[in-house]
Amino acid sequence: MEKKIQVNAGIIIIGNEILSGRTQDINTSSIALWLNSLGVKVEEVRIIPDIEDSIVTTINKVRNKYNYVFTTGGIGPTHDDITAKSISKAFGLKYEIHTEAFKILENYYKPGEFNKGRQTMAWMPSKAKLILNPTSGAPGFFVENVFCLPGVPTILKSMLGGLKNEIAGGKPILSFTISLNTVESEIAEPLKNVQNNNKEVEIGSYPFFKAGKLGVSIVMRSTDKSKIDNCNSQILEFVNKKKIEVNSKN
Amino acid sequence: MEKKIQVNAGIIIIGNEILSGRTQDINTSSIALWLNSLGVKVEEVRIIPDIEDSIVTTINKVRNKYNYVFTTGGIGPTHDDITAKSISKAFGLKYEIHTEAFKILENYYKPGEFNKGRQTMAWMPSKAKLILNPTSGAPGFFVENVFCLPGVPTILKSMLGGLKNEIAGGKPILSFTISLNTVESEIAEPLKNVQNNNKEVEIGSYPFFKAGKLGVSIVMRSTDKSKIDNCNSQILEFVNKKKIEVNSKN
Repeated sequence: MEKKIQVNAGIIIIGNEILSGRTQDINTSSIALWLNSLGVKVEEVRIIPDIEDSIVTTINKVRNKYNYVFTTGGIGPTHDDITAKSISKAFGLKYEIHTEAFKILENYYKPGEFNKGRQTMAWMPSKAKLILNPTSGAPGFFVENVFCLPGVPTILKSMLGGLKNEIAGGKPILSFTISLNTVESEIAEPLKNVQNNNKEVEIGSYPFFKAGKLGVSIVMRSTDKSKIDNCNSQILEFVNKKKIEVNSKN
Repeated sequence: MEKKIQVNAGIIIIGNEILSGRTQDINTSSIALWLNSLGVKVEEVRIIPDIEDSIVTTINKVRNKYNYVFTTGGIGPTHDDITAKSISKAFGLKYEIHTEAFKILENYYKPGEFNKGRQTMAWMPSKAKLILNPTSGAPGFFVENVFCLPGVPTILKSMLGGLKNEIAGGKPILSFTISLNTVESEIAEPLKNVQNNNKEVEIGSYPFFKAGKLGVSIVMRSTDKSKIDNCNSQILEFVNKKKIEVNSKN
């Protein structure tokens, strides 16, 4: 049987506001869930500051490691929006007005409102292809395998759908979770055995506290539903034997 | 005037559950805000999978780049908890039972309950120093400048306080935010000028949508309150001139 290599991706979150703790990143989750559905697995995320050198170096490291790279943040009109310029530098491309982006923005704003601040959003690496923005006009862009999206979560999410045809993924990555009313140490041994017998399913164990109760969620991930089902049966076997209560399955 | 070098830190989030999109990381924010108060600036975050090679390589890269490194996740009793073993490998230290941790755990559990699964939580790199856990018994640990904390956010937060004396930071990093009822492109030019005139204050601009209204939060960060105040006055100057409404200040 041919072993299919997993298509993978890295995410680069560009933003001092995440590093300072002021804002919690929620874009990683949106991008990762969307990529799972396209059969692309996120292997790494890096959160870096709005500093040109950091962006250039990180982009050039990460774009050679993974099939796809997604960046978020830094494509607005203010002084701290330096993603497009930094990507140009990373790829050794000119940083210039993208005529198509300029037209989109010009049409988006009322006559007289397409001011100098807004025009900076049309500056991109030469050869960049656009990622259309159904929410707020200003497009993202991509160069080779690096896709640059905005940092505002609702806008980012609205732009993912239009990108689907650019991503050549694999079989969707499926996930199934059983939540148990127990603690991790009660199930560590038998769960380890199940993982050893099911190497192609990624099994994660996550303690939780809900409504004053302790529990453990066991998450199984694979592109093959039958392998998840098989794994699930083996887990339920020791769960039943140990008389552990199942809280939920989904 | 002597220029004080900023004490800095990197964070490594170890966890497939974040990369898969299932869980949103909130530990970065907790650690970063706490470090700000100690005068330590987070320069980079990496989110990596529960894979020994990834952990070892990432630890060895990041611990040489920053004064402090914090890891979260992977210190429980299940098969996917491989942080302690990986840190041992990264530092070339033995992975062995930490006698003090073993005693703490033995006392924490009722007689007979300190089972094999729970005992794995006492395995650590030799020479590791403990980070006490007031919430759930199992201690974290640190080796040199690498501090290993659990992934469960409430437990992690409860452990930070006890670490304060281990961190030699600088002046606390202060932050002040003005939220304006405007859009970024209206203020991009004058804000850029303020940034150029106040290079020692980090100024960030973040669009927001609240109750159907568009706005921009301008965040100023510095260890020097007078520099923030000065910057703030210059921003208010152009805000007043442009008759932009101030939404909030804090």
